[in-house]
Amino acid sequence: MAPAGGPGAKRGILERLESGEVVVGDGSFLITLEKRGYVKAGLWTPEAVVEQPDAVRQLHMEFLRAGSNVMQTFTFSASEDNMESKWEDVNAAACDLAREVAGKGDALVAGGICQTTVYKHHKDEARVKKLFQLQLDVFARKNVDFLIAEYFEHAEEAMWAVEVLKELGKPVAATMCIGPDGDMHGVPPGECAVKLVKAGAAIVGVNCRFGPSTSLKTMKLMKEGLQAAGLKAHLMVQSLGFHTPDCGRGGFVDLPEYPFGLEPRVATRWDIQKYAREAYRLGVRYIGGCCGFEPYHIRAIAEELAPERGFLPPASEKHGSWGSGLDMHTKPWIRARARKEYWENLRIASGRPYNPSMSKPDAWGVTKGTAELMQQKEATTEQQLRELFEKQKFKSAQ
Amino acid sequence: MAPAGGPGAKRGILERLESGEVVVGDGSFLITLEKRGYVKAGLWTPEAVVEQPDAVRQLHMEFLRAGSNVMQTFTFSASEDNMESKWEDVNAAACDLAREVAGKGDALVAGGICQTTVYKHHKDEARVKKLFQLQLDVFARKNVDFLIAEYFEHAEEAMWAVEVLKELGKPVAATMCIGPDGDMHGVPPGECAVKLVKAGAAIVGVNCRFGPSTSLKTMKLMKEGLQAAGLKAHLMVQSLGFHTPDCGRGGFVDLPEYPFGLEPRVATRWDIQKYAREAYRLGVRYIGGCCGFEPYHIRAIAEELAPERGFLPPASEKHGSWGSGLDMHTKPWIRARARKEYWENLRIASGRPYNPSMSKPDAWGVTKGTAELMQQKEATTEQQLRELFEKQKFKSAQ
Amino acid sequence: MAPAGGPGAKRGILERLESGEVVVGDGSFLITLEKRGYVKAGLWTPEAVVEQPDAVRQLHMEFLRAGSNVMQTFTFSASEDNMESKWEDVNAAACDLAREVAGKGDALVAGGICQTTVYKHHKDEARVKKLFQLQLDVFARKNVDFLIAEYFEHAEEAMWAVEVLKELGKPVAATMCIGPDGDMHGVPPGECAVKLVKAGAAIVGVNCRFGPSTSLKTMKLMKEGLQAAGLKAHLMVQSLGFHTPDCGRGGFVDLPEYPFGLEPRVATRWDIQKYAREAYRLGVRYIGGCCGFEPYHIRAIAEELAPERGFLPPASEKHGSWGSGLDMHTKPWIRARARKEYWENLRIASGRPYNPSMSKPDAWGVTKGTAELMQQKEATTEQQLRELFEKQKFKSAQ
Amino acid sequence: MAPAGGPGAKRGILERLESGEVVVGDGSFLITLEKRGYVKAGLWTPEAVVEQPDAVRQLHMEFLRAGSNVMQTFTFSASEDNMESKWEDVNAAACDLAREVAGKGDALVAGGICQTTVYKHHKDEARVKKLFQLQLDVFARKNVDFLIAEYFEHAEEAMWAVEVLKELGKPVAATMCIGPDGDMHGVPPGECAVKLVKAGAAIVGVNCRFGPSTSLKTMKLMKEGLQAAGLKAHLMVQSLGFHTPDCGRGGFVDLPEYPFGLEPRVATRWDIQKYAREAYRLGVRYIGGCCGFEPYHIRAIAEELAPERGFLPPASEKHGSWGSGLDMHTKPWIRARARKEYWENLRIASGRPYNPSMSKPDAWGVTKGTAELMQQKEATTEQQLRELFEKQKFKSAQ
Repeated sequence: MAPAGGPGAKRGILERLESGEVVVGDGSFLITLEKRGYVKAGLWTPEAVVEQPDAVRQLHMEFLRAGSNVMQTFTFSASEDNMESKWEDVNAAACDLAREVAGKGDALVAGGICQTTVYKHHKDEARVKKLFQLQLDVFARKNVDFLIAEYFEHAEEAMWAVEVLKELGKPVAATMCIGPDGDMHGVPPGECAVKLVKAGAAIVGVNCRFGPSTSLKTMKLMKEGLQAAGLKAHLMVQSLGFHTPDCGRGGFVDLPEYPFGLEPRVATRWDIQKYAREAYRLGVRYIGGCCGFEPYHIRAIAEELAPERGFLPPASEKHGSWGSGLDMHTKPWIRARARKEYWENLRIASGRPYNPSMSKPDAWGVTKGTAELMQQKEATTEQQLRELFEKQKFKSAQ
Repeated sequence: MAPAGGPGAKRGILERLESGEVVVGDGSFLITLEKRGYVKAGLWTPEAVVEQPDAVRQLHMEFLRAGSNVMQTFTFSASEDNMESKWEDVNAAACDLAREVAGKGDALVAGGICQTTVYKHHKDEARVKKLFQLQLDVFARKNVDFLIAEYFEHAEEAMWAVEVLKELGKPVAATMCIGPDGDMHGVPPGECAVKLVKAGAAIVGVNCRFGPSTSLKTMKLMKEGLQAAGLKAHLMVQSLGFHTPDCGRGGFVDLPEYPFGLEPRVATRWDIQKYAREAYRLGVRYIGGCCGFEPYHIRAIAEELAPERGFLPPASEKHGSWGSGLDMHTKPWIRARARKEYWENLRIASGRPYNPSMSKPDAWGVTKGTAELMQQKEATTEQQLRELFEKQKFKSAQ
Repeated sequence: MAPAGGPGAKRGILERLESGEVVVGDGSFLITLEKRGYVKAGLWTPEAVVEQPDAVRQLHMEFLRAGSNVMQTFTFSASEDNMESKWEDVNAAACDLAREVAGKGDALVAGGICQTTVYKHHKDEARVKKLFQLQLDVFARKNVDFLIAEYFEHAEEAMWAVEVLKELGKPVAATMCIGPDGDMHGVPPGECAVKLVKAGAAIVGVNCRFGPSTSLKTMKLMKEGLQAAGLKAHLMVQSLGFHTPDCGRGGFVDLPEYPFGLEPRVATRWDIQKYAREAYRLGVRYIGGCCGFEPYHIRAIAEELAPERGFLPPASEKHGSWGSGLDMHTKPWIRARARKEYWENLRIASGRPYNPSMSKPDAWGVTKGTAELMQQKEATTEQQLRELFEKQKFKSAQ
Repeated sequence: MAPAGGPGAKRGILERLESGEVVVGDGSFLITLEKRGYVKAGLWTPEAVVEQPDAVRQLHMEFLRAGSNVMQTFTFSASEDNMESKWEDVNAAACDLAREVAGKGDALVAGGICQTTVYKHHKDEARVKKLFQLQLDVFARKNVDFLIAEYFEHAEEAMWAVEVLKELGKPVAATMCIGPDGDMHGVPPGECAVKLVKAGAAIVGVNCRFGPSTSLKTMKLMKEGLQAAGLKAHLMVQSLGFHTPDCGRGGFVDLPEYPFGLEPRVATRWDIQKYAREAYRLGVRYIGGCCGFEPYHIRAIAEELAPERGFLPPASEKHGSWGSGLDMHTKPWIRARARKEYWENLRIASGRPYNPSMSKPDAWGVTKGTAELMQQKEATTEQQLRELFEKQKFKSAQ
């Protein structure tokens, strides 16, 4: 691939957004690769990039084929827990994989960093920024196309991240994992967006933790906050691929189904087309997904916005728009489902009549709560688990 | 890999089953690869084995890693619609891919054939058997380890398939896509099983069309039928990865959600552990999955039966049994979910409060019904779709 | 009122049924009066007829006004537990109340008896028949118009009841509280119906324990049984006013919601119109209700069958058919609900998103099971309750 | 009964509340009598007090027996539509019935007025107040114990009502039919409460339109509003007996189930005990119900607060607290339900697996919207219904 900016180079992320183009993001790595057998839930770390590069490459390929314009590096958080030598090799390898696949289509490489556990425990600005800088050094060396600071619960830490990232001179996107109630300190979405833009982010929005419709509510508040402050920024949304109407401020991690019982919440391709359309109407132009977003969900974004963009993604050769491929099905009553009206209006069943439709989230309060809520490094002991369980029983009986 | 039966050769399928060993089957190819972008719904054909072999190989690898002892060839039905030259190349390539991956672990290669559209239209035994023979020729040439006749709605056609396959002298497994109500002509499961064994199948059971608990009900009836007839055979089950308590005789294809709205029905890993345990209790020793079975579902079978088998599959290095990996989660309330009791008793929510838990299946009757239900080769016209839709409206208002 | 058979007398129950007329039964006394404050759940005894006759009279009046052609006496079971003097006075008073209200409209008085606890413990035919005879003596003295043996779980005991009742020379109706699986000894519905007719019942059917659609399934089986045996009888159905798709052989008493959490299962008036129509189509001509059937449910039967019967019940002066009364509502969007199509197709919500749609019944097996399932006279001790509870926990975890 | 204030007189409403006593209100008349056959849905008028006084008296008796300390007159709105002679006779008769029953126990008589259609069309203060005055004249003549201005959607009209009522010199309670979003003009609950107290109400709160938990949210906002304004007043809540988590600003009338499909939303007695306890904790001391509140719901309030009040209501002679009466049930597994823990934790099923748990309200906006939403006097024409229906279809497809 030609060097960025050289002749034949791909257009950069800002160039695209400024011309009004829709940028399709990518989807879920951790949760998808957990189901494929390459990531361990709980740890949620990306060592697969060196252990099983074929599996990671394949997933990148599927997103590219589904229409993604961005290959996000599947990188380690360089937090103190993982500060041993290996994280740097993993991150470098992740950059190479992302670049390799991006080169096979119209996609850019984005280096991604996220929140640290150091922040929650110490709020030590210098130490937190140092961690971001270490990761940035790898991205600089690997010459990624732009940077994403994502999955931040606290506006303050997200600002620190942006402040570090912008030093490289590449475009910086910043997304928080918050819902309409705002960050963990109660900073509302509109104010978060303003802080991020003032810190230097050219693109702001949300990712993870909340489902499609909840995430768009948050985006609306961010947009209004920016308008009220007279600021301009590109908007970006990468919601969960799960419906979470019942979660509280902490998002889906507080739902009792997290992380091994989320199946009935998975969005259909039609849900995602609706999400893409609504995001577009709201003025969001960088539209992708996070946990739970499979390749066919990304394709659904690309198909929904194909009229605006003028083309379909490669994977649409294997997909008839709005089920139209079913008109060749051998059974005629299934052919009758080959139309938009059918899928748009169908209220699909869970097949689980003994289960509810909503859950009460574990209401453990915000992260920085009482001592029992502090994050821990050590494995929880049997005794601690029993105590937590007793508290939980008490809460749910209330 | 050494030739079958030679020194160092893997133990054959019957050798395993006769010694009481559990054989873990593999999972979903068509529906899984549709979501990854390589298969077209409606057509449901496997041309990806030549178009995108990396994607198919990767899925085989994931099932192997999850614990599968069988790599089923991802092969075309050599029915008249696809009788052009390409099907033979696709099938040969599918055998090579399956063999390549099987060689990387303790897995056998099974050549698979399924029901024909010829049978439904003509019931011409010679013509149907010819189609089976053509496919068998490829499997013979590629020296697969055993054969599977699967996805048969009619006991008669399944018998014909067994009769053809057994001529090769390799073990033959036969599974029908029926539920407790029996085949499309009303032949009950017990009688179907008897017919298949008498035709020469060494292994009988069901695959596809029905969810885990419904499939096990059918298996119970098959087992009872064989016992009543004084016959012996190994039992095999490869259910859907979807819960379908509400489907009728035709199975999940008659559910209004098929095929693009099945998400809320996807089984959890815990559901599959329960399925594996119940199948084992029932005496079934070949346990796998069909549409909707992702690699982590196969791993769940292997983990549930690890005590009996004495080992875990490779992918369990990335999975703590019963959620135990969560004891390292950074949030303590999620650590509290790191135990069997939690996941076994959780009634997971759909996150879809405006949707029902059960659907009324499209009651189009059995396949061989009135003219309008005949399977067709041509794409349905707009006019036909409108007529079907009107009939459907009338039915659902009843 | 003129003596039965005299000039101006009402037409008797058989006269009506034989002429093809629809007879509308009455509804729920125990559960309805429990909610009004006059009956104690658990005991379920009718002492209100002497303690609070106004309340009982009012409920009779409401059913009459809703269209009931039968006033069933609200009578005590003269079982040994209640054999003290008071039951006879209560039963006599109940007859007087029923007669008083029946006299205000076109209704007959039916004396009702039901199963005994003696049968379950001893199966002593003489003793059981003696209990029936004692009750019959009161009905004879009070000159009821016909007799109903209802709420029998065992065909044998129901036959004994019919044998006693028929001695009076008045028509005898017999209904069992069974579902499609048959009685507690496994006698199927068709066979139960045959036994009852052979014993001397002119009208047979089911009452209580199962919801509208389940009860009609049982009626279908009864009808088929009679046809197969070449017997003729009038058919009668008095289902619950609750939907119970999830209950087992024991019916709604085994549902965890019984008796204080059945609210979300209450049928709408539209559900009951459908029930009345289907019962009519099946050839059932005596159509009423049991527990949970409120006056408006009885009105729904009378309204649905008004075209066949030629008249509406008095209470329809306060009810527009299919919601037509809403066309005068002050809010126009509620006026839009004034039509049959609206109510027939509406899938009504529970307003309970944290609750399931189906329950697992307490699977305590049939009544005559192990020792722990024997019915008891004494109040359960704390210790016994704890033991039962532990067993229940164990069961539900399975 | 002795004249109010005379020797032996009952303690007045304010005397009770000021001493910290709990006052138990009464429940549903219109919806309950509709189901019993005496009120026409859509019209919702109380002519039964003269047509069928026994039925109305009986319901008053049931509430008294269940523990109500207030008999609200079942009175006509003297709006122009009903200004013909009959309303005055109906209202006078309603006062007599309420007084007759109140005399049989510890209950006061409250004369009730509600919002007018004149206000919505004309906002003519003089005309509206005149209507209130006409009704007050009857209450003055009949010497009711206190007055209730209830079911007001607009704070302004409620204030006018209070201003008229207070002229009589009797205590005035004022409740609005609003939810947490405030009145139809967007006046928030806290501000509504302040306006009502300033206008002269001694007791303020909400009634109707919203279910128990939603109504308590509104009460919390009212309480906070009064506190912020430094005002004091007694708090009163009379919620629906239906769960309505899914309704918008307009409350349950906008739910598609209103008024003939609300059955699955009916609260259990245990739901109401929770409501009573939470209301008490919030400082509300006048606790009753509105539409859907049956006598057993009122008894649930009286039973929940029996420890605080020191006595049970008469109807508790037929009800064991928390299901304890079941310890005498003939079936042992039902005896196991005779405890608080069982009923408090049970998630009851709807028995309706094809239905959702939540509904989308008809989003017709607020009452005073576009022309099509204007209230009408004439019956809607077929043409108008069709137009409304088309609009509705369009909306629900969105």
